[in-house]
Amino acid sequence: MIMLPGPTNVPSRVMRAMLKPIINHRGPEFKELYARILENLRYVFQTKGDVTILTASGTGGIECAVSNIVQGANKILVPVSGFFGERLRDNIIAMGGKVVEIPVEWGKSVNIDQIEDIVKKDKDIKAIALVYNETSTGTKINCLREIGEFCNEHDLLFVVDAISVLGGDYLPVDDWHVDICVAGSQKCLMCPPGLALLSISEKAWSVIEKSTNTFYFSLKAYKKYEKEGQTPYTPAIPLYYALDEALNMIKEEGLENFIQRHILCAKAIYNAIERMGLTLFAEEKFRSNTVIAVKYPPKVSDSTFRELLRNKYKVVIAGGQGKLKGSIFRIGSMGMVTQAEVLQVIAAISMAFSDLGFKLNFDDSIAAVREVFKEK
Amino acid sequence: MIMLPGPTNVPSRVMRAMLKPIINHRGPEFKELYARILENLRYVFQTKGDVTILTASGTGGIECAVSNIVQGANKILVPVSGFFGERLRDNIIAMGGKVVEIPVEWGKSVNIDQIEDIVKKDKDIKAIALVYNETSTGTKINCLREIGEFCNEHDLLFVVDAISVLGGDYLPVDDWHVDICVAGSQKCLMCPPGLALLSISEKAWSVIEKSTNTFYFSLKAYKKYEKEGQTPYTPAIPLYYALDEALNMIKEEGLENFIQRHILCAKAIYNAIERMGLTLFAEEKFRSNTVIAVKYPPKVSDSTFRELLRNKYKVVIAGGQGKLKGSIFRIGSMGMVTQAEVLQVIAAISMAFSDLGFKLNFDDSIAAVREVFKEK
Repeated sequence: MIMLPGPTNVPSRVMRAMLKPIINHRGPEFKELYARILENLRYVFQTKGDVTILTASGTGGIECAVSNIVQGANKILVPVSGFFGERLRDNIIAMGGKVVEIPVEWGKSVNIDQIEDIVKKDKDIKAIALVYNETSTGTKINCLREIGEFCNEHDLLFVVDAISVLGGDYLPVDDWHVDICVAGSQKCLMCPPGLALLSISEKAWSVIEKSTNTFYFSLKAYKKYEKEGQTPYTPAIPLYYALDEALNMIKEEGLENFIQRHILCAKAIYNAIERMGLTLFAEEKFRSNTVIAVKYPPKVSDSTFRELLRNKYKVVIAGGQGKLKGSIFRIGSMGMVTQAEVLQVIAAISMAFSDLGFKLNFDDSIAAVREVFKEK
Repeated sequence: MIMLPGPTNVPSRVMRAMLKPIINHRGPEFKELYARILENLRYVFQTKGDVTILTASGTGGIECAVSNIVQGANKILVPVSGFFGERLRDNIIAMGGKVVEIPVEWGKSVNIDQIEDIVKKDKDIKAIALVYNETSTGTKINCLREIGEFCNEHDLLFVVDAISVLGGDYLPVDDWHVDICVAGSQKCLMCPPGLALLSISEKAWSVIEKSTNTFYFSLKAYKKYEKEGQTPYTPAIPLYYALDEALNMIKEEGLENFIQRHILCAKAIYNAIERMGLTLFAEEKFRSNTVIAVKYPPKVSDSTFRELLRNKYKVVIAGGQGKLKGSIFRIGSMGMVTQAEVLQVIAAISMAFSDLGFKLNFDDSIAAVREVFKEK
């Protein structure tokens, strides 16, 4: 079992969908498949605007968003509170954009006042780009809606990296005034990795129109070909089939239930980890619903602990990234996660620590999981 | 049955490989998988140099090659003899490069004298980029080796789009002095679409080192992570499994046999089409071994013909692209193609034309296929 912050466990319905026949991506079967996926993606993004699919990882989706706006909105405000915030910042710089950075302590998150202060002083800022759910620290921005409203009032473009969260937490892009939202197939959406998903607002198009610096990621090209029911470049057909099936499953469950299930599982994991006596990395009010970051007790080796977990208890979780390497571990709670997976990961963590000589409150931690699910 | 110039029919061994478990792309299983694929890719590219894999379509592979060299080799000579040559040219321009174009009549191909003349006059040209096998016209460059030798002698970087041909024709990148070669998973290599494959020479690295204008396609990032047995961004794991299995199959068959099978199938199709009384689009000396382009007889509707072929005879082929839309059809003869597929596509084409009232030499065309395979 993999409890990574991506890739995640993929339901067998979704895996098997990849075996459907390879089709002509310029033919009628693809047109039908593509139209259905786009319609269902609109449901997940909660948008009436445009959505599109790229054959690329999430970082490719970010490069797409960035390269399509840097020419039209050159100075961009970027709060940075972790590895993926740094990556977003660096990507904007690589594509020729100017960045105004808000450095945020890892484990915390930006607040609306910091943003307002800077934007009011610097009239050249044309966009705000940020990571909603910082996978490297297990934090989320808890004022995303307010930032969106602020962007809307001040005519700023609002670009949101929601790669590790779309479907796992609330993010109605139209209501929250998100102009470009980027998600990945291999996180909450229960698909294999390989597709990046974007929503694009009407307001974003006026900026995108000015872009000439990308070809593979040109949103104008995607829009042009979409009129024919096609993608401009050959799509990864098996992954489209997988996404189609996963979106069908989300519709069957209902988006609200799907999000609530993520919230419940995360709550149970947080509850259990604290009851176990371990320390969470993220400050409470910024805790992510999809990535749970936990501090190692002193003198525990990350590689020893995670190898034990993997080899003896068959549970794969992630270590720290960037400057957090070795000091935290991260549990991904995304996609097809239920009480069963939560119990398994909590039990495995308890037992592995016990093997390493730590006396944690095993029974309490299991009880903590059950309490949360009973409440429901 | 799809006889497209990509995507192509995928063997069931390769399809089933996609169902292997989703793994941690930062873990030991991936490391092993990745190392094996890279080793086998070196076999197919016939290189001792670096190879890499991108989660992207072939055009993403081209954007990668271009964005990694335009800063170090800004003025690039590009022969253009079809839709994909135009795309390569436009991609270089989009990434900020200067292009010196050699316009070539569609259906023909550039010769070495044209290249020598221009390079000798313009000392600012630092690279030659071209499409080896022009999918839109069914032509190939028949002096690729000579161009490579010329580049080697004149210290020019040599970038080759071999998306629709690697594995289907001779292309030993080290021997032919190709510095960056781009291929796609969904053509001759018998995989689903979604991966671009690149070989990179030692000489290319000195130019790549100067690139700062891409992030997702940064070859420096790929090289850095490869040391840990990883990709910098989440790879499309099921497609890696598919590629692994397809490369195993190519090794089992042997690269020389694999290429020879492509040559034989193309020869049989060319022979049959001519015997049928139809006219080929490409001039004889420039004919591709993987894409066969055929002119429609007067008054045949492309959509009527190909729909008939698809609905009645269950064979999917491609129409024309760009300015050739409606005037030619194209047969892809790639990957798992054998005498059986060739006979099926030739029979289907004969019968569809017969349904449309054309009297073609059906028996002769089938005999023409058999003659070629008997020769062997």
